[in-house]
Amino acid sequence: MKNAISPTRNENFSEWYQQVINQAELAENSPVRGCMVIRPWGYGIWEQIQRELDQKFKDSGHANAYFPLLIPLSFLQKEAEHVDGFAKECAVVTHHRLEQSANGKLIPAGELEEPLIIRPTSETVIGASFSRWVQSYRDLPLLINQWANVLRWEMRPRIFLRTSEFLWQEGHTVHASKAEALDETLKMLDIYERFTIDYLAIPVIKGEKCSWERFPGAVNTYTIEAMMQDGKALQAGTSHFLGQNFAQASDIRFVNKDGIKELAWTTSWGVSTRLIGAMIMAHGDDDGLVIPPLVAPTQVIIVPIVRNEQDAEAIYAYCDDLKKKISRKKIKGQYLRISIDKREMNSGEKKWYHIKRGVPVRVEVGIKELEQNMVSYSCRDNTKSILKIDSGAFIKEIQRTLLTIQKSMLNSAKSKLSAHTKTVTSLKDFKSAFQRKDKLNAFILAPFIEDKEVEKAIGEFGVTVRCIPLIQPKATATCLFTGKPTNTWALYAKSY
Amino acid sequence: MKNAISPTRNENFSEWYQQVINQAELAENSPVRGCMVIRPWGYGIWEQIQRELDQKFKDSGHANAYFPLLIPLSFLQKEAEHVDGFAKECAVVTHHRLEQSANGKLIPAGELEEPLIIRPTSETVIGASFSRWVQSYRDLPLLINQWANVLRWEMRPRIFLRTSEFLWQEGHTVHASKAEALDETLKMLDIYERFTIDYLAIPVIKGEKCSWERFPGAVNTYTIEAMMQDGKALQAGTSHFLGQNFAQASDIRFVNKDGIKELAWTTSWGVSTRLIGAMIMAHGDDDGLVIPPLVAPTQVIIVPIVRNEQDAEAIYAYCDDLKKKISRKKIKGQYLRISIDKREMNSGEKKWYHIKRGVPVRVEVGIKELEQNMVSYSCRDNTKSILKIDSGAFIKEIQRTLLTIQKSMLNSAKSKLSAHTKTVTSLKDFKSAFQRKDKLNAFILAPFIEDKEVEKAIGEFGVTVRCIPLIQPKATATCLFTGKPTNTWALYAKSY
Repeated sequence: MKNAISPTRNENFSEWYQQVINQAELAENSPVRGCMVIRPWGYGIWEQIQRELDQKFKDSGHANAYFPLLIPLSFLQKEAEHVDGFAKECAVVTHHRLEQSANGKLIPAGELEEPLIIRPTSETVIGASFSRWVQSYRDLPLLINQWANVLRWEMRPRIFLRTSEFLWQEGHTVHASKAEALDETLKMLDIYERFTIDYLAIPVIKGEKCSWERFPGAVNTYTIEAMMQDGKALQAGTSHFLGQNFAQASDIRFVNKDGIKELAWTTSWGVSTRLIGAMIMAHGDDDGLVIPPLVAPTQVIIVPIVRNEQDAEAIYAYCDDLKKKISRKKIKGQYLRISIDKREMNSGEKKWYHIKRGVPVRVEVGIKELEQNMVSYSCRDNTKSILKIDSGAFIKEIQRTLLTIQKSMLNSAKSKLSAHTKTVTSLKDFKSAFQRKDKLNAFILAPFIEDKEVEKAIGEFGVTVRCIPLIQPKATATCLFTGKPTNTWALYAKSY
Repeated sequence: MKNAISPTRNENFSEWYQQVINQAELAENSPVRGCMVIRPWGYGIWEQIQRELDQKFKDSGHANAYFPLLIPLSFLQKEAEHVDGFAKECAVVTHHRLEQSANGKLIPAGELEEPLIIRPTSETVIGASFSRWVQSYRDLPLLINQWANVLRWEMRPRIFLRTSEFLWQEGHTVHASKAEALDETLKMLDIYERFTIDYLAIPVIKGEKCSWERFPGAVNTYTIEAMMQDGKALQAGTSHFLGQNFAQASDIRFVNKDGIKELAWTTSWGVSTRLIGAMIMAHGDDDGLVIPPLVAPTQVIIVPIVRNEQDAEAIYAYCDDLKKKISRKKIKGQYLRISIDKREMNSGEKKWYHIKRGVPVRVEVGIKELEQNMVSYSCRDNTKSILKIDSGAFIKEIQRTLLTIQKSMLNSAKSKLSAHTKTVTSLKDFKSAFQRKDKLNAFILAPFIEDKEVEKAIGEFGVTVRCIPLIQPKATATCLFTGKPTNTWALYAKSY
């Protein structure tokens, strides 16, 4: 089929991913190395993600605020592990103006006394504010979120997955006790899990990162790991219990009920435009993008098929009426998002345009549909393909149709996850799981010992410890790499 | 009154402004020179502004997208006037990592081949994408908006008014003809005007900037100018007709209906977090902030007055019920925003807390109100002060009450604008208008000639040409500074 994506997923998954992005007009590489331009269709998906998450954050008591883009070098250095973790990928501002050099070329001028770092994450600059805002136990908990751009210089950028600049939200909270901060860390992980399952239709494994995979400066890092269609893992969101490390670094202290000054406990948590990459790789097919209805910028696209100019007006009026009726309906509190594509373009081209962009339901209205008061429609996930039905019935069923697609996408992703997740207790099985002829990877659940020797051994296969799942098999086994007995199991996988 | 803002507006308007911001917890200076932290209450106002404007942009056919933060120096140089205009205030990224120097200090490393500029505005980087996106007349008009942070290094920063980093939206559009691009420029100016009047309750003068006040690289710059309570002007939004300057610089061309390649026409337009500064200075009083109801993060605050612990439960239940009933109501499509302040704090302190933050309606519920099924309430704009009425009547009237405050705030700002706007035709009157004993400034409408001599002469009084109003007096007069006859009139004022 000449209009499908080339190569297919089986032929070359990585190039297929790039082609889906190009042809769906989601984003493009910018001339600024490692940075991307998020085009309207891609940004529209991000807006849906933002709106839903933002509401969940607010419902759980968090307020948005905004902190500076630039962080003084001395701030970043306040937490030793933190600065070590980010030093290699920092964009550094050293000058504050441009001036003409002797040969007429514009060059940086006005050198800063202290270099400024474009935030790779904001713990240290937000900590400076929190140390002023938190004085008494009455000021706690302090529950803040920020929607922002961050920058981590990437040597091997990949759109949505690893770009130097990306968009994200970063939550930062302060608590009076360790227990409360740990609760918050896990509560936000749960919100990420529910959102990823319910809206992106992607099942995830919830777990804790091992020591060498932790956020620089965190005491514990929790993660949700999703499986892509090539069997690789993608870290879809993380939530960090920071203990008192950053409170110490930024001097966040409060007077407790007994009038004694105490060091506070903090957390941070974030998800990014990476979620769009996860959605593409979890659901896309060889025809292009497939968007779960709940996050689709357009859920229903109406394509008028005008073969004779004289029918145009009547067909358009019929489409307008359809749109009007459907856009009054709601799913999960949101009005349905529906458009009519009236562009001058042949209908085959138009059809493929919307297939590649992953619009959940495509409706075609020609003169026959008009005369019979019907519509022809297809569901992008192929559950229903070119079905001709009464327009009243279509309107009546549209919410259920969209929710059915949403559910079927989740079920299909769940089946893939469970088909490619295996429990392994021998080194031979471990190795063969990552060396299949069909190049399909897997999620391997195997015994785990917190030992750098393990990291080294699995690194040789390009495998990493994704997490120590919160739900553990109740069994003792032997670590495949150190031979030591353990009752801890980890999820191992190749990853993005 | 010990809890009011000190100094008052009359005593020191500029210091009063800073104190209102501090005490309403809107924002604070950050340790990064010239940058601000927007605190939750300030950011909440920005979220209201964003939501309303975003809807208006979408309703008029614009889509959001996102472009890189960093602009290669060579891009900025593509338009000569543009780079001249911004060279003195550019933050320059020159390195992409940090490393330990010989003495153990962290220093910038990995010098970039070409310096990158943090966007002061995005015409040039967006132009690079537009030149790829626009191929044919079918791709036009291209109507894009971006919500983003930008950076212009400020020597004399002032929160919300002039900060090195600020948040804004920047619209960028491409058109097939000059007329269409000009239409768009003025249409967006109208959207800004309606929003500023209808939501911020601030009347504005719409006009065109004279040549030396134009956006660097623009053919025409249009503006809305608002009057602050000290009689100074604040530029609240601008819309630029860029002609073919940036299309030329970025090579944005399209094949027209006749198959011939043409240079496109572009526009750009923006408003920023500065609007919050305008709102503070247009409406604040000596007690603190006064927020127009339509953009207030909380429109109604309920303060339970508990004098005996035994009444607490019943009073809270009564407040919860009130909140539930009111939050079901809508104004302009938005559910009412209402909170209950249950913090442990004495009720006088609490009352001042909300007064200073400018919450439009404050409700007090004590045991008496509960027993009589009443509420006591005050309107922040002083139209109604501690009125005790039946709770049913209060709920029934709440939307009208809020809209009345909104309207009364606009009327009051309109009166101030008209009282302090004067038409002047002699140099003596011009001078005395800006040298009043009460330090109150004015908007002066006077004859205008596009001559640098004028700029110099008025600069001596610290006055600038704010705009050439779109609505002009139909009269010929003599320019006060050049003595030349003219039928063009300009708005002169001191400004922020």
